[in-house]
Parts: sequence; structure tokens; C-alpha cells
Amino acid sequence: MNFSIQKLDTSLEKELQHKIDFKTKPIGSLGILEEIAIKIGCIQSNLNPTILKPTIVVFAGDHGIVKKHAVSSFPQEVTSQMVLNFLAGGAAINVFSKLNNIDLKIVDSGVNFDFELHTNLLDAKISKGTKDYTETMAMSVEQCNLAITKGAEIAKKIHSTGCNTIGFGEMGIGNTSSAALLMSAFTNLSIEECTGKGTGHDANGVLNKIKILKRAQNIHSNDKDPLKILANYGGFEIAMITGAILQSAQLKMTILIDGFIVSSALLAAHAINKNIVDYCIFSHTSGEKGHKKMLQFLNAKTVLNLGLKLGEGTGAALAIPTVQAAVAFLNKMASFESAGVSEKN
Amino acid sequence: MNFSIQKLDTSLEKELQHKIDFKTKPIGSLGILEEIAIKIGCIQSNLNPTILKPTIVVFAGDHGIVKKHAVSSFPQEVTSQMVLNFLAGGAAINVFSKLNNIDLKIVDSGVNFDFELHTNLLDAKISKGTKDYTETMAMSVEQCNLAITKGAEIAKKIHSTGCNTIGFGEMGIGNTSSAALLMSAFTNLSIEECTGKGTGHDANGVLNKIKILKRAQNIHSNDKDPLKILANYGGFEIAMITGAILQSAQLKMTILIDGFIVSSALLAAHAINKNIVDYCIFSHTSGEKGHKKMLQFLNAKTVLNLGLKLGEGTGAALAIPTVQAAVAFLNKMASFESAGVSEKN
Repeated sequence: MNFSIQKLDTSLEKELQHKIDFKTKPIGSLGILEEIAIKIGCIQSNLNPTILKPTIVVFAGDHGIVKKHAVSSFPQEVTSQMVLNFLAGGAAINVFSKLNNIDLKIVDSGVNFDFELHTNLLDAKISKGTKDYTETMAMSVEQCNLAITKGAEIAKKIHSTGCNTIGFGEMGIGNTSSAALLMSAFTNLSIEECTGKGTGHDANGVLNKIKILKRAQNIHSNDKDPLKILANYGGFEIAMITGAILQSAQLKMTILIDGFIVSSALLAAHAINKNIVDYCIFSHTSGEKGHKKMLQFLNAKTVLNLGLKLGEGTGAALAIPTVQAAVAFLNKMASFESAGVSEKN
Repeated sequence: MNFSIQKLDTSLEKELQHKIDFKTKPIGSLGILEEIAIKIGCIQSNLNPTILKPTIVVFAGDHGIVKKHAVSSFPQEVTSQMVLNFLAGGAAINVFSKLNNIDLKIVDSGVNFDFELHTNLLDAKISKGTKDYTETMAMSVEQCNLAITKGAEIAKKIHSTGCNTIGFGEMGIGNTSSAALLMSAFTNLSIEECTGKGTGHDANGVLNKIKILKRAQNIHSNDKDPLKILANYGGFEIAMITGAILQSAQLKMTILIDGFIVSSALLAAHAINKNIVDYCIFSHTSGEKGHKKMLQFLNAKTVLNLGLKLGEGTGAALAIPTVQAAVAFLNKMASFESAGVSEKN
């Protein structure tokens, strides 16, 4: 699938900065909020940008690696159990989405479970989990392309409902391992630098995880094509997020990047098209070890630093109020002139 | 005025931690939100705490120092102009309070202006600005006591409306200078370490500000009594916040501490009663130079780090959604058992 993503049009940047500098506040005193306001203004080519129908899409998929190898502290069935928890409204992402008036969509990208029909569950299942990447490719290149296409279609559909601000989340037992492998492949950092505790390993667990991931690297390390890398390590949910990110940028939506795993999907999107980061707001710095270096690689500054390491899009959901505040001050604060306030000496 | 502030009752801490650890998420994966949830649960002695009627009170006062000395980049009349801007709804704190459903109250603690009656303006004026602390005390000890009492009365009144979560903001041209002097007195750090750019000094402006503040220290440095220190350096808005903080803790409200100036009021409250910090949530790390070291002195961890340096309580207003998220996950997330999700291996 081909995406056409333009470099961000920054022609309004100076006007936005001027508008901000004449608000009744000292120059620069709203910090990161000012940067967010300018970015969203540029994305929307509008001096009065808006946040419309903010939506988070959680993609879920299973990972073949966990069947034989102890890369995760939780058993595979937790992926499907957590999807059911999302549908029942009991997970963290449900609570935060409801609190912050965010539309929440759940997608079955490839969970090893037959779900009953549910109005809140989008069926985009590629297959019942990826293959074990220590033995073969996690998915075929065709499956990877299909996942990207399906992710893009979902983003397009959400955009058509009037949403202009989208965040992504994920659920998939074992997916910090895929993310670590993708990170290592796309950043050329060692797998040791990319591998963290995931959902709760101790130091020995991490060492064992690294050993397993090195086996995967040994059989796939010659591939340089982004699509092939993504297909090698999976998962379906990550590939779908890559497609959804690319499509969202093409549609000039503001994209809220969550933590370690969503950022690994962004690394794949970034390898496909470097302009992608122009449309991204980095919600938070995750507690998962590799995330800081991923962010450095992407030259990204985050909004929040709450020590989260949960996934599901929770960081994106928690960053929404700050993003809304950035747009609100730009649109609603008085200027020195309108308020009759004296300017700086 | 005497305050009776108990050490935080932590008898529910273990039960709160247990409740959190059985939520459908990996242990510790909600980072700072878990700490906030436990703190508020302990403050309210409740496993299901609530955030009721979150309120921010902005205290405004003028500073005698600015009449002869260039400690601020803005002229004194900006204090009253900004109060009028608050009343008209055009300032950053108005925008953020409205966005996050926060009740906003404005208090005239001692502005050099005669305001007309306004339903949203509480009159607690001590006098029309403090005196120049390079020449004499900013206020008398009696005035300081009165300011503390009035601040406490305002906190009590707000509590009586059903509010259990309160934040404070301030407006006062010149008040980073008072805050720097208070910081230096209460932490024993040099005035150089406590003095920053305020609303927009360059390096020379900061050096000049330090020179002026040293003169003040030379004439007041022998005082060790917290009340005397507060009276020496002012301002009325800071002393009122000190009283409001002490009263709020006595009433077992959760207190949201804003940036550099509100934290200087907290330093005074802390010198009066060390238990005060048990009731505080530190909203954000300010971009104003001294704030980080103030936070270190108080052993405080902040929620947000957005590079704000605006005051008005804006950091507290922006932190409210995160605090609400902390309480919401504690109350509303499913447990492993209730959701039928398998626990960690």
C-alpha cells in the first residue's frame, strides 16, 4: 500500500507564534503547550485549530513466540481476556477514555480466540496469532501488507466520522518483545538496549528474554526492508497501527503516540516515510526501558512523564486534556490589547 | 493563628495498594497515578476516594519593591489589569479551569487598585500593596497574621461548599522576588540559587534582581521565625496562600501545589508545620529556576513537567485531569477476578 504524506506545512508557524506571544501571559510561559498549539495549527493549517471527536483505537493480537518461550510474565489467554475486559468497560483505557470524553474502538487484529459479535469490536483478524519468529517469519509479507491496509482502512473510517485527533493503543501478550526487535532493527541499537521488563520480569527474566530475542535476530538479521522487518517480528496489532498511523498522517489528523509498542509501530512507519513524525504528538515517556532511546532516535519530546508502562493507549488518553488545553489557550485567551493589559517593559 | 494538622493517617495504605495490585494491569504499571491514588485514599481515609468540586483560588497582591526597583519585567499595574482579565474570563487560568470543570475564585489580597464590586472577586485586601523590603518589612507581623487568617477563612468557606480538592494560584508583579527571598530563608540556599528570570529577565536582569534581593537579605537576615520571615518579604497573596494551605490540610482536603510562588508559600507553611506536605500533590515542575531545588528540599515528586512558568494556578488546573484519572482507575477498573483475567505466572 502506498501512502502520500506531505511534509508539514509550516507556513502559519510565524502567525501562530505571534498570536501566542500576544496572549496575556509572559512570552513562552506555557512551555510545551505552546509547541503543541503551533504543531496542531500547522497540521490543520488553521490559526484556530480544533480537537474534534478524539478517538483511541486499541488493536489486539497474539504472538506465536509466547507459546514455547517465556518472554512474557502473563499467559497468552490474557490477550483475549483483556479484549473482553475492554468490551465490558473494565480496563484502564476504558476508565480514562470515559473520563476524558474519548471515543474508544477495539480491534481484533489477530487474537487467538473466537469472539462473539459485539458492537464495539471491529473484526480485522489476520489469523489467530503470529508465528514464532525464532523459527520463521512472524507473518508473511502479504499478511503484513494486509494488516497495514486494514489499519489504514480503520483510520480512514474513523476520520470519516469527523475525528481529527487519533491515538492508538495495543494489547498483545509478548508484544514488548516484538517492539524490542523492531526497535533494534530500525535504530541499530543492540537488543540489550531495547529489551526491558515488559509486564513484570525480574533481571533474570530480562536476560532470558534477550537470549530468546537474539535467536530471532540471528535468523532475520539480513533484512533491511521495513515491510520485511515488520513481517519478521510482528505482531499483527503493531503492523495495523503502522498502517493506521500512515493513513492518519495522510489525512492530516493529529496523531497521539502512546508508549513503547505504539512507538515501535511508528518506527516502522518512519522507515517507510520520514514525514510521519510531523503529525505526531508524543503523549508520554514510558517506564519500559527502551522507550527513552526510541524517543531520542525520533528526536521526540513527550507531553507527560508519569512512569506508565501499561499500554492500551493509556498514555495517549491521559495526554488528551493537555492537548485540549493547548488548543483552548490558543483560541480562547485574551490578548494584551483585548484585555487592556500592559505589555512587558 | 494556630493550626492543628495531623500526620497523614496511613492505616489504609496497604489495603489501597492491595486494591490497586488486583486491578487488571501489571503491578505498578500506572506509575505516579498509583501514588496519587494511595495518597488521596489516605487523606480521605477511604478506599473509594472522590474528587469533589475541585476549586482553584487565585490570590492577587502588589509588591512595594517594584516601585523603585526593576525586579520585574512588567509594570505594577499589570497586577490589577490581570485581576480584571481573570474577572472577564480571558486569562490562561480561566481557560484551563473552564476546560477541566474547576471552580475558580479570585481574591484581592492587596492589590494597588480599587476594584468595583464583582460577584467573582473576594475582597480580602490587607492594604494597597506591601512595602519595599529593601527599606523595611514588607508588612507588619500583625498584617501577616491577618493575611494568614483571611486565607484560612477562605479555604474554610470553600470547604463548606463541598469541595475536597483545592489548588492555589497567584498574581502579583514582583512576586518571584518575594518567593526567591522566602526560598533562600527557608532552605538556606544562596539567593543566587533561588533567583530566576521571572516573567522574562535576561541574564543581566537576573544579576540586577539578585543585587536588589541581597540588599533585602542584609537588613532582614537575622530573623528565624517563619511568621517574621513571611512578614519581611511578603507578599500579601503569598501569606494568604500559606494560611489557606494550612487550613486546607487541617480540613483534610487534597491540596494541589502550583509552581514557584505557591511553593514558596508552602515553604512557610512547612516551617510552621512539617505535616503539611502529607496533604499536598505537587502539580508540576516550573520552568522558573529555583523550583526544582524547592521541590528537592520538600522531597516532592511532581505530576507534570510541561515547562510552565506562568503562575495563576495554571499548573494545578492542568494537573486536575491526571488526579481525577488516579481516583477513577482506583474506583472503576475491574479486578483480575471480576473480569476473569488470568494473573501473572
